[in-house]
This record gives sequence, C-alpha cells and structure tokens, in this order.
Amino acid sequence: MELIKKALNGDKRSLSRIISKAELGDEFQREIMKSISPNIWNGYRIGITGPPGAGKSTITNQLTKHYLNEGKKVAIIAVDPTSPFSGGALLGDRIRMTDIGSEEGVFIRSMATRGSLGGLSEKTSDTADILSAAGYDIILIETVGVGQSELDIANNSDTTLVTLVPESGDSIQAMKAGLMEIADLYIINKSDRAGAESLVSAIKTILTLNDKSNDEWSPQIIKSIATENVGTKEIAAEIERHKEFLVKNNLLVERRLGHTRKKIEEIINSRLKKIIWNDDREKLIKKILPEIMNGSLSAHEAADQIILSYSNDNS
Amino acid sequence: MELIKKALNGDKRSLSRIISKAELGDEFQREIMKSISPNIWNGYRIGITGPPGAGKSTITNQLTKHYLNEGKKVAIIAVDPTSPFSGGALLGDRIRMTDIGSEEGVFIRSMATRGSLGGLSEKTSDTADILSAAGYDIILIETVGVGQSELDIANNSDTTLVTLVPESGDSIQAMKAGLMEIADLYIINKSDRAGAESLVSAIKTILTLNDKSNDEWSPQIIKSIATENVGTKEIAAEIERHKEFLVKNNLLVERRLGHTRKKIEEIINSRLKKIIWNDDREKLIKKILPEIMNGSLSAHEAADQIILSYSNDNS
Repeated sequence: MELIKKALNGDKRSLSRIISKAELGDEFQREIMKSISPNIWNGYRIGITGPPGAGKSTITNQLTKHYLNEGKKVAIIAVDPTSPFSGGALLGDRIRMTDIGSEEGVFIRSMATRGSLGGLSEKTSDTADILSAAGYDIILIETVGVGQSELDIANNSDTTLVTLVPESGDSIQAMKAGLMEIADLYIINKSDRAGAESLVSAIKTILTLNDKSNDEWSPQIIKSIATENVGTKEIAAEIERHKEFLVKNNLLVERRLGHTRKKIEEIINSRLKKIIWNDDREKLIKKILPEIMNGSLSAHEAADQIILSYSNDNS
Repeated sequence: MELIKKALNGDKRSLSRIISKAELGDEFQREIMKSISPNIWNGYRIGITGPPGAGKSTITNQLTKHYLNEGKKVAIIAVDPTSPFSGGALLGDRIRMTDIGSEEGVFIRSMATRGSLGGLSEKTSDTADILSAAGYDIILIETVGVGQSELDIANNSDTTLVTLVPESGDSIQAMKAGLMEIADLYIINKSDRAGAESLVSAIKTILTLNDKSNDEWSPQIIKSIATENVGTKEIAAEIERHKEFLVKNNLLVERRLGHTRKKIEEIINSRLKKIIWNDDREKLIKKILPEIMNGSLSAHEAADQIILSYSNDNS
C-alpha cells in the first residue's frame, strides 16, 4: 500500500496517518501490523514514568537531544492523561517539546488516555511497533504514573525509568502507586532541592528490602537536574548498561515475549467484547437488568446468560 | 447454608469469611451472590477518593462516627494500593481506624489492589452487595485516587466524594487523574492551610467550564478540617441532599443500572479469560510466540488464531 510505503520511507505525515488509522482497530490495523511484523523489534523502547511534576517531559527532551547527537533517530510517544472537561490533552507538557519537535530525526506522537482505558496498551504497543519499523532507533514512551498507565508503559518498554522528586511523601507515593515494581532505573530529578539525599536513602532502603539473587538486575539511582541537563549522560549510560545486561542474559527476548503475550491477551479481550455486544445481546441485557434491580437475579447469573447466548451463536 | 445465615444475622467473623470466599470467584461466589440478590440495594454506597495524604481515612472515620450517632450501621471498604515489596497492605492508614473498628455497628474490610487489576471492581461490588444484605445502612468505599482505582470506586458508589488539600498543583493533578469527572461533592480538607481559598476558586472555575443543564447535579465544595471534625456535618448533609436529588429524579436506579451493566461486562470478561486460557491454548501460544519474535507473525494474527481455536471448541 502506497501510504504505508511512504510512511516507512520517512514521510512523517504519512507516518502520523497510518498510526491514526491503525488506532481505529479495523482491517487496516491488521494489514499494517502484518506488513511491518519483521521489523517491529528494531527500535529500543524506553519508558519514562513518575508522578506529575517530576520533570518527565524535560528528561525526555534531554535524552532526545543526547540520542540525536549520537546520530540516532528518536520517536516520542507521550501518553497524556486528558482533562475531563476539555476532552483534549493537557497541552502544557507538550508545548515544551517544540524545541526538539522540529528536528528531522525526531517524531512526536501524543496519545490520549481518555476513553481508551484498557485499549491504551494495545495502541501504545502498535504505535511503538510502527515507529520501530519506520526506522526510529529509540522509542521514548512517557506517561504520568497514575495507576494503570505506568503498568501499560512497563508492558511496552525494554527499559523503564521511574522519575521522582525530593518532595515529602514522594517515595511513599511511588510505593503506593506501584512504581517501584517496574523501575529498571530511578531518576531523582530536581536533585538540587532539599531532601534529595534522604529520598535517595529511602529508595536504597526499600531496594534492600527486596531480596534479589545475584543474577538479577539491581536498579541504580541517578540524581539529575533536567532543566540544566545535569545527569542526562549518566541516565543514557545506565540505560545502555541495562540493555547490555538484558541482551547478555537473554532477558531482552524473554521480556519482549512476556509483553507480547500480554498484548495478545488484550487484543483477544477487545475483539471478544466487540463480538459479544452485538444487537441481540444488547437486547438481552436490557431485558435482564431490571431483574437485577428488583432482586430476582444476580449480576453473576446475568453474566452466565450472556455467555450462554454468545456460545449458542457459535455452535 | 449455615455460614451465610450466620453472616447475614450479624456475626462479623462469618461475614469476613463469606467475603473472602466470594473473592475466590468459584461456585460459592455464585451461590452467595444469588442468595442475597433481593437485598443488595438496601445500603447506601459512598465512595471517597483523592490523592495520597488528602485525609481520606480521617474523613471516613469522622463520617462513620456521625452515622453511628444517627443509629446507623456502617461498613467501610478500604481499597489499599499495596506495597510492591512487602506484598501486604500499607498499614498506616488502617491503624488510624482502630478507634472505630471496635464499635459494634462498624465493619471494616481492607481490599488489596495488588494482583487484582481488572477484578478489583467486581470484588468491591460483591463485597458492597454482601455488606448491604448483611444490614449495613451506609457503605463507605475509600481508595487513593490513582488511575483506575478511583473509576472502580465511582462505578460502585451512589455518591462519590473527591477529597483535595490546598497544596500546589493538587487541582491540576485532580484534573489529570480524572477525579473531577466522578465527583458528586468536593471536600477541601486541611482547609486552615494556606491556599485553601485559591483551590476552591480553581475548582469553581473548572466547574463553570463544564456546562450543565439545569436539571443536572452541581457538585458543591465543602471545606473541612477532618482531624478537628470540622465540616463532617456539612459533608453528611450534602451527601443526603445528593441522595434525595438522585431519588427524586429517578437517577439512583439509573446510576445503579449503569454500574450493574459495567459489573456484568467485567464478570463476563474474567470468565471468558478463564475459559480461553486452558491447556490447549497455553500450548498454542507457546508455539506462536517465537513466530512473533522472529517477525513472521503479528500479535493481531496470533490473537485471531487463539480466538479461532476457542470458537472451534464451542462448535
């Protein structure tokens, strides 16, 4: 297909279009994903997450410049939690990206989380696959760490960076939000602020609680001041060290296998949803719901009836 | 069944046991949920969410005491984001509850989010149903507002309270996390701190952006100092006003219908997952995954093969 060819040959406008078309989830999605399947693993995927205000976008910018200087092509997938009232993405973070957005070797894609809960990981993964096939060496996936979205990121990344700032309670928040589970590297940003050292100690303490065998990866902690480009080189070096560790121990393939398995589960889930909720089942549930409200049926029995109706369709 | 009868007759230990057994998701779950279905709507469900440190547990405690004084029985479902390394719940918040936990008319249940992503809403809903059938008039469901969990809360609550504190960026964080979408009532806790008034103004401004027709509910903003019991009465009065509004406009049933529909979808989802991933399909995906890694197959084609295998089983 002409559009796909143009996109993979470097035309950014075509690239944007095929990503948008793939997101619709129809026949085109299968076609494009099938045609690029030999090249989806070429790029290296780096996830960046952390609480709001931790400086994730600035770190993303600095890493992008770093990789550009190394002659690499860089794609950024910015997963944006959206404002409930505007319906659009909060633009503040994105605006800061304009200084790299115009570079030839950079491609930026924003993805809204609104209304796509559950399907977000599939979309992010498809987009990373496409960008990888389009020749981007580094794919930076950035999201705010609120609940599900940072798991989606970890499920799509070869290396996951967790960014924290020295503010009271941040390390506890990170633990609560499950960020510590997914970190391959900690960045303590704004490390010139008071409390940086105690945050580093707190994370070190938490990490020692997590008994690891000798052949497992031990996440390092790097202090940065992203606005002044302090720490960028060290972060990039540590990402490289992690990548080498994964490759050497045959863990990169293993990690990608795990992510692919999760992706297949998610695709199956969304396909079945579409198949199940056809007009017949919509009628059925409208009939059933009042029975649950008046107490003559449980939601679990209702689910059984819907599944039975679906199975009968296929027999 | 003797255990269910004892639980519904007020024996707290039996109640804990049937909730735990229902969580396992086997035949017992269907049995208990079927047997209580006439009484699941007796209790009123109040969700309390907000960022970490906003004082949700303290507000929950104060509201509990308030309702106890009114002669009501109160159940608390505390949805706990868990520490990744300990595997258990972070106990800090729960410890504060000991002063009400020993009251005869109070039942407290902690639910860990760890490892239950996706199934959490079903478990929370089942537990609220059981507590409702066991005669608890008020069911307080408390969780930290990080991503998916506050949506789970809103999907199980008749009235949802969003708690914020006057700290920089909190209103923006709330918008980002989607908290503003689900609020029926805003609580500005720790309102004696600097910045309380400007937070109130910020939320008011955001609320005016959200054009509502006259017959829709307009969330109010209540200032509280939960540790000093300031604002508790006003919060309870506003919850009551919201309840009356829902009942008067026939919206309580509508809301519960919507929540039940979502619950049925979730039950179907988890059931199908169990059916699909039997030994045959586990073997199939182990065969397929390497083909995706070497680029000869896409994840989408793999999903098609699994679904086909499942459909063939049922034909």
